[in-house]
Amino acid sequence: MNATRPPSSCAPRLLALCGGVGGAKLALGLERLYGEAVSIVVNTGDDFEHLGLHVSPDIDTVLYTLGGRSDLERGWGRAGETWQFMKALHELGGETWFQLGDRDLAMHVERTRQLRANVSLTDITRDIAEKFGIAATILPMSDDRVETTVITANAAMPFQRYFVEKQCTPVVKRIEFRGAERASASDAVLAALRNPGLEAIIICPSNPYLSIDPILSIRNLRSALKEAAVPIVVVSPLIGGQAVKGPTAKIMAELGVPAESRALVAHYAGLIDGIVIDEQDRADAAGLGLPVCVAPTLMRNLEDRTRLARTTAEFAIKLTARASQTSGGAS
Amino acid sequence: MNATRPPSSCAPRLLALCGGVGGAKLALGLERLYGEAVSIVVNTGDDFEHLGLHVSPDIDTVLYTLGGRSDLERGWGRAGETWQFMKALHELGGETWFQLGDRDLAMHVERTRQLRANVSLTDITRDIAEKFGIAATILPMSDDRVETTVITANAAMPFQRYFVEKQCTPVVKRIEFRGAERASASDAVLAALRNPGLEAIIICPSNPYLSIDPILSIRNLRSALKEAAVPIVVVSPLIGGQAVKGPTAKIMAELGVPAESRALVAHYAGLIDGIVIDEQDRADAAGLGLPVCVAPTLMRNLEDRTRLARTTAEFAIKLTARASQTSGGAS
Repeated sequence: MNATRPPSSCAPRLLALCGGVGGAKLALGLERLYGEAVSIVVNTGDDFEHLGLHVSPDIDTVLYTLGGRSDLERGWGRAGETWQFMKALHELGGETWFQLGDRDLAMHVERTRQLRANVSLTDITRDIAEKFGIAATILPMSDDRVETTVITANAAMPFQRYFVEKQCTPVVKRIEFRGAERASASDAVLAALRNPGLEAIIICPSNPYLSIDPILSIRNLRSALKEAAVPIVVVSPLIGGQAVKGPTAKIMAELGVPAESRALVAHYAGLIDGIVIDEQDRADAAGLGLPVCVAPTLMRNLEDRTRLARTTAEFAIKLTARASQTSGGAS
Repeated sequence: MNATRPPSSCAPRLLALCGGVGGAKLALGLERLYGEAVSIVVNTGDDFEHLGLHVSPDIDTVLYTLGGRSDLERGWGRAGETWQFMKALHELGGETWFQLGDRDLAMHVERTRQLRANVSLTDITRDIAEKFGIAATILPMSDDRVETTVITANAAMPFQRYFVEKQCTPVVKRIEFRGAERASASDAVLAALRNPGLEAIIICPSNPYLSIDPILSIRNLRSALKEAAVPIVVVSPLIGGQAVKGPTAKIMAELGVPAESRALVAHYAGLIDGIVIDEQDRADAAGLGLPVCVAPTLMRNLEDRTRLARTTAEFAIKLTARASQTSGGAS
């Protein structure tokens, strides 16, 4: 591969947009490779109030994954988790559709306490990331509430109700990001996007509709992304027309979009400069109309994660950003 | 013993005033013997907000004890308790001076949720008692907040700070029940005290200053007690000048009161019609100026509890209440 710009002498400064489990896998690879040069902007559209506690599912997945505390087998929550709280709650007749482990609960209780004391989600997350020894900067997309709401034929439900309680079975008609019009990206997110040292932006292989769109629904975050004079690449969450995990393919079908690379490119049109697709989808590459990197995207272990992170980062930083082309070019 | 009134054909209807561990032991004995004929009015002066959760220590002790869920060895909290939440909270830098077990936490989270949804503490407690299969009626003294505040030479601190964090070491100058002047006994407590079937009121062997005085600090509760035309007896929490558990004797010393039966009688003057003292304190009996029952008051096991409960109840219902004497006599 011929790089169009000389490789940085230090680790590339990267910013990733990330949702839950799939995205966190790539985020972990990026962090292992590039450490504190990585900022991860995380979806908070799934945040909700449960049992009087503020729960931030995607933030927690990223914190637990990068902090070495995630349950790799179950795919969510904390390693070595126990469930005495849930058993006792069941006995009291409490709501048990959303599982909260005994260790996980400490996160929700402590974060809720701090939020009520007017500490921002951004500051709380920074503090926990430090305590977990995470080198990367983990940034909630906003300190304002944006609520991903799934509109089905009969109901409008918060994302976690759809995802966990209904197990993604209702047919999705539309997805709304309630509060987005009033929400602002946090100062920390805007600063990371405007960092003159930034070299590339990576959209992790997260669900575009449920995990990335909430981030993009925030107006000043989206414009700061567009104004960032660095390449933006997306790693496709699809492999052979299927999502590795979660309802991406099902939702694309229900929204009348084929679960293919070109649909992803169309979805992110005007924003991305390149796409990473799986080897199984190699045939898609020719017709996409933008630079494509074909790589193994299934991440089963840490080696897969760091390899895909390296491939993606190297692919991204050698691209010329569309924004920088428009503005006269930075490379 | 010659009863001054014929024994009831059914179980005597009894009302007990109760604090934490010591009181709950006798309450358990009463419930085992008399089942649903027992109402237990519980101190809520120790209730406090911790980590954003409402904690009702004495209510929980009574619920866990009567619900067969208490840790008999440790003396507080739930049997089979685990501590994963506390470990994870410590890791997050949260406040860990007050231990909340994983199972216990379900109580605080669910109760806090319901309180925020404007369900009363009385209704929440009734619901949990039913779920725990408790036959007796457990009644928080009030749905209003009364805060037992310990005044030391240098500070005023909420009871749990004194009791748990400071381990009762500061010297107590005074105890205040903040909010008592605005608090009202719950309707359920007043109804239980005015129940025409009520036969006796028992003050459990709880700390008079920290567990019973908060109950008595509520004006309409105290007057309803005085107006109840039934005998009131106290079971002494002292054995040979010492409390079985907790800081009763230490506090009496600091308040300049000898830790003796007569000091208890003086403390409850105008309220009680009789006292149950331990066999070790038999010598005190003669000079107390009111009917005395001498009995083994140390409760090591369930048999001790039911025996003391039976002795106390039988002693109480054969007394003539001072209120009933004044009003012409009900016996």
